[in-house]
Amino acid sequence: MACGPDPARNLRSALAGIGRAAARGAQVICLPELFRTQYFCQEADADNFDLAESIPGPTTSALSAAARKHCAVIVAGIFERRAAGVFHNTAVVIDADGSLIGTYRKMHIPDDPLYCEKFYFTPGDLGFRVFPTRFGRIAPLICWDQWFPEAARLATLAGAEFLIYPTAIGWHPSEVESQGAVQREAWSVVQRAHAIANGVFVAAINRVGAERTLDASESRPANYRGLHFWGRSFVCDPLGAILGEAGESEQLVVAVCDRDEIERTRRDWPFLRDRRIDSYRQMTERSLE
Amino acid sequence: MACGPDPARNLRSALAGIGRAAARGAQVICLPELFRTQYFCQEADADNFDLAESIPGPTTSALSAAARKHCAVIVAGIFERRAAGVFHNTAVVIDADGSLIGTYRKMHIPDDPLYCEKFYFTPGDLGFRVFPTRFGRIAPLICWDQWFPEAARLATLAGAEFLIYPTAIGWHPSEVESQGAVQREAWSVVQRAHAIANGVFVAAINRVGAERTLDASESRPANYRGLHFWGRSFVCDPLGAILGEAGESEQLVVAVCDRDEIERTRRDWPFLRDRRIDSYRQMTERSLE
Repeated sequence: MACGPDPARNLRSALAGIGRAAARGAQVICLPELFRTQYFCQEADADNFDLAESIPGPTTSALSAAARKHCAVIVAGIFERRAAGVFHNTAVVIDADGSLIGTYRKMHIPDDPLYCEKFYFTPGDLGFRVFPTRFGRIAPLICWDQWFPEAARLATLAGAEFLIYPTAIGWHPSEVESQGAVQREAWSVVQRAHAIANGVFVAAINRVGAERTLDASESRPANYRGLHFWGRSFVCDPLGAILGEAGESEQLVVAVCDRDEIERTRRDWPFLRDRRIDSYRQMTERSLE
Repeated sequence: MACGPDPARNLRSALAGIGRAAARGAQVICLPELFRTQYFCQEADADNFDLAESIPGPTTSALSAAARKHCAVIVAGIFERRAAGVFHNTAVVIDADGSLIGTYRKMHIPDDPLYCEKFYFTPGDLGFRVFPTRFGRIAPLICWDQWFPEAARLATLAGAEFLIYPTAIGWHPSEVESQGAVQREAWSVVQRAHAIANGVFVAAINRVGAERTLDASESRPANYRGLHFWGRSFVCDPLGAILGEAGESEQLVVAVCDRDEIERTRRDWPFLRDRRIDSYRQMTERSLE
């Protein structure tokens, strides 16, 4: 989905999308990262903390009502205010009866030009979590987490059937021509690989559209004049095969995920059987150099 | 390369290929897994232990001479006899001066129909290793290892610039039509993801051609009538972009790998900076369920 400057309108738009997805039979419905706002992290501005809210709070209330109404599980990204000076980039899981059963706080926090997330978000302290819902065991992860095989693996070991990544990733407009295709392909490949290596379904839900920084004047370096979110939300199966994929504009992707595929795939490719757990201790090191 | 029943002939063929690669300017030259023999692991037969050799041994001697002659680093897969009853699936790294500087023993051992590797190979006990060569820091890994993000990560943390996977992977002929494309794509995707997640170059060197089991009669289940090795050896850069790729027949792939790409890629996408090493302790668990 595209996210505009008005949080109320973004919520209405999301609820309408949830309704359309439910009408097409969706049982698990996912919204992008921080879907209520534009991607304010393009700049470090303390006033943006006003955009945060508590969990549970107004957004989870609205989503709970929608989940109950449509008998669907909902996964969504929320800017969470936990305490004064402690804010998180969070995903919630709401079960089909409307109950808020899961909170995941983004563990891997980026900080790159126009992605000033370390300014806003305290790194998550809940670890990698799996929530049993009416329609499957879901591990919510968020955006930058998608580049870390450790996150996918730990969620899998904890029993995940679905890794779901609410996302806000885009191009620096100045790089689209030279690197756009390679960057987007890398983003898709690394997530499909999580599905393959772990024998799980993966879904990534990205925002779309251009959002400019407040100060997008020509005097800024080209890399600081806004982001073009590339969409391309997708769902893939445990072999990494794409089951459904969006384009670069607002779009609903509905995919059928047969959970028996997990059992079948892992019997053929039993990677979890052969992990050398006696030799992974140094995964907790920063560097071995 | 294709590997026939005569080990001497396979060695001559490999040495000829090394010569051709060197003539095209190759500095690091890689051979497939167990390149001196056919893929004997299709059956569990103790007589096949006769195919193993010591390291150093006749094969490393021949490869050392070739490395010295061509001033090239060589990586190759060898069936290693370590002691009576202790055999390994091993990769050696020979520096451009002919010195044997690296031995890696396959850590993740498969065991599936026609891949009876747990019968032959004691799991490696050397861990994931990086060897500084004249032309870069090389981590040899072998075939089944390619499905394990832990192996790629630990090699990267130890300083690898190149992950090199000698490989012997193929289709069950009965599955080619229904699953061949998906399986091969998954194999490529999961390895390109190692390059992306770690900011390193990745090369996979596979054998080609059909090899039948000794007892390939129609009375056997369709899944037990031999393997069709799918080739498709490739090299990709730290963004996962393919730099060179072979087809399904014998072929030399030569790719230019600019090691400065590693520095550039990791500055743009600093995943290693953001790993949550405080939260990966459970990577050493078999399951958290």
